[in-house]
Amino acid sequence: MSTDLQKIIAGRRATEFVQNDMVVGIGSGSTIAHVIDSLGERVAQENLKIVGVATSERTRRHAAQLGIPMYNVDDVDKIDLTIDGADQIADDFSAIKGGGAALLWEKIVAFNSRENIWVVDATKRVSKLNQYLPVEVIPYGSNQLFKRFQADGFHPSWRLDQNGNPVRTDSANFLIDLHLPIIENPRELGDELIRMVGVVEHGLFTDVVNRVVIGEDDHTAKVVSVK
Amino acid sequence: MSTDLQKIIAGRRATEFVQNDMVVGIGSGSTIAHVIDSLGERVAQENLKIVGVATSERTRRHAAQLGIPMYNVDDVDKIDLTIDGADQIADDFSAIKGGGAALLWEKIVAFNSRENIWVVDATKRVSKLNQYLPVEVIPYGSNQLFKRFQADGFHPSWRLDQNGNPVRTDSANFLIDLHLPIIENPRELGDELIRMVGVVEHGLFTDVVNRVVIGEDDHTAKVVSVK
Repeated sequence: MSTDLQKIIAGRRATEFVQNDMVVGIGSGSTIAHVIDSLGERVAQENLKIVGVATSERTRRHAAQLGIPMYNVDDVDKIDLTIDGADQIADDFSAIKGGGAALLWEKIVAFNSRENIWVVDATKRVSKLNQYLPVEVIPYGSNQLFKRFQADGFHPSWRLDQNGNPVRTDSANFLIDLHLPIIENPRELGDELIRMVGVVEHGLFTDVVNRVVIGEDDHTAKVVSVK
Repeated sequence: MSTDLQKIIAGRRATEFVQNDMVVGIGSGSTIAHVIDSLGERVAQENLKIVGVATSERTRRHAAQLGIPMYNVDDVDKIDLTIDGADQIADDFSAIKGGGAALLWEKIVAFNSRENIWVVDATKRVSKLNQYLPVEVIPYGSNQLFKRFQADGFHPSWRLDQNGNPVRTDSANFLIDLHLPIIENPRELGDELIRMVGVVEHGLFTDVVNRVVIGEDDHTAKVVSVK
């Protein structure tokens, strides 16, 4: 089975947690595109009444096209439930996000959401996090920070666009990707990174998720309750 | 004696720690203006050879006018010594900075400096920090963060310009000032704030300073070594 079908099945299952009158945070990425399609169907067919808060301009456009009323994060009273993807999820339910450069806004929406659901295909599950870790940094002083990451053994690389210029995030910051063979203690590493002056946010999401929906190889979606 | 004369005397004393071939971080504010004047004199009269790194555009202009070669923080190898002011310094040598809205760049320069000197007049010394605390925040989601500060009893207020619009920092972020009667444990509060998603930096400077130069009432400058 293709991971694309896994994503569709998992995305559909995740939207079942969305109820009338909810303010729903909607993440970004290819899996979330299926969540948006599925939410749009429920709005059209079941007359589901929800308000959406997007974590990227692309998500906002897609959802609005399907008739989901979209609000700015600062214009809603609170967010009831956020559905987002993840680049990797470990056995301890820590995750890495930020491959799509939207980690800061995704984390802001997650932080302000009463409940968080992550939707992934089975390939995203790992025992321990072991892929590159995006860190969003203030441009001013970022060369100094990069040198510090090098000295600390974090093997940093700049996130560049196709012209070789630093990628700018939606908040106009830079991204530095750290290349660690394995992240043994995500909470500890996250604490260390967030205290470094010039670091705005990092892609480690710990103590965030309440439910994980996984598209499995056997055409089913498994729901795991975390807390 | 006016605090202005205290500032002049203290600023002059602080520049005595600057030696040939140093890369010097230069802070912002009224006390630091005297430091810049004094550095300019030493460059002109003693042929002192230094390179400066500014924490604000105003400082950069002032120093460049006096013949101090100014470099961008990202274009120097390292910073040897940074001289900056503070809004308040407590007995434990924690400080609040950010009244002038430059706290982020000031903290970035301080963090990347081998040694830090603060220059203040005697009125800035307090037993415990007890003035408003500036927090620099990402505009996206800042209304939610403001509500969270309210719920946490931090008595937040927006930093507004004379037209009533939110002040934008040099990194285009917003400032929220927290109004706490007294800050008993600056390190603990700083840790709590920096972990809140959407907080870029806060005005608490702990474990930063190496020497404090204080302009005293009796026309002397007292130098206190911290670590």
